[in-house]
Amino acid sequence: MKENDITYRFIGIVHSPHKSDEGIPIQPIGAKGIKAEIEVFEEFQEGLKDLEEFSHIIVLYDFHRSKDYKLIVKPFLDNETHGVFATRAPKRPNSIGLSVLKLNKVVENILYVENVDILDETPILDIKPYVSKFDSVEKERNGWLEKKIDKSIIQKSDNRFK
Amino acid sequence: MKENDITYRFIGIVHSPHKSDEGIPIQPIGAKGIKAEIEVFEEFQEGLKDLEEFSHIIVLYDFHRSKDYKLIVKPFLDNETHGVFATRAPKRPNSIGLSVLKLNKVVENILYVENVDILDETPILDIKPYVSKFDSVEKERNGWLEKKIDKSIIQKSDNRFK
Repeated sequence: MKENDITYRFIGIVHSPHKSDEGIPIQPIGAKGIKAEIEVFEEFQEGLKDLEEFSHIIVLYDFHRSKDYKLIVKPFLDNETHGVFATRAPKRPNSIGLSVLKLNKVVENILYVENVDILDETPILDIKPYVSKFDSVEKERNGWLEKKIDKSIIQKSDNRFK
Repeated sequence: MKENDITYRFIGIVHSPHKSDEGIPIQPIGAKGIKAEIEVFEEFQEGLKDLEEFSHIIVLYDFHRSKDYKLIVKPFLDNETHGVFATRAPKRPNSIGLSVLKLNKVVENILYVENVDILDETPILDIKPYVSKFDSVEKERNGWLEKKIDKSIIQKSDNRFK
């Protein structure tokens, strides 16, 4: 490996009702029915061909409000500390977020999405079709999250990752 | 949004039996049982605390052999063309790959993983715990991939994304 870092260019931006990073749902399952638009910049619009045939998409984005990181964190869903890679906390060495969203329609360069837990003005890195045979696992161990998952439906963010 | 791009630092590297980008499985479901190691650089090792409690992880990495991109592509699984964002093809505007891998164990800074479709020496961007309630969708439409998914179990890559 020759390079130690890489620069990516944002391909779009989210227009979401979540204007503040306090109080937003922490996962799409806590954001059922919340709609937003992803504006893909026009130069990339051609890359959206046939995306509308998929009911769900994987969206990768930058947690643009997270400016530093910690290796040990206390996530929203627990009072114990965990390694940051064992959590979905935004303050990560690379501040990349991932959400699986419902795709309602595509009109030109705008994706109309639902179950959105993403902050307004979040820059987008990539969009991929969600395919359960590729991306879903039937039986898994969820570690410390096992007993906390249902809490994520009602848990909102606070200011701990500011 | 003030910045149009972002620089991320690699947090690790894959040591995989896939030495060439021709002939490797194109998805983890085509790589059942194939084992590899993810070496997380020592400065980030502390962030792995409690990760071993999870049976599966989401690994984000850079398709380091993909040096340019196309907005319209003919993916491995189809002879029709599609927008790149409706495919998992490596030549994307941001060359970020995503695989859900089985995590067998963690020893110090080494993750022992299985079902690996990732090329040797691939640089790692992020590791997240896989949580089906966050990341899996029960009923979905798979667009053009619907009738091609089973083919992905046997399909290997060729040189079309070189």
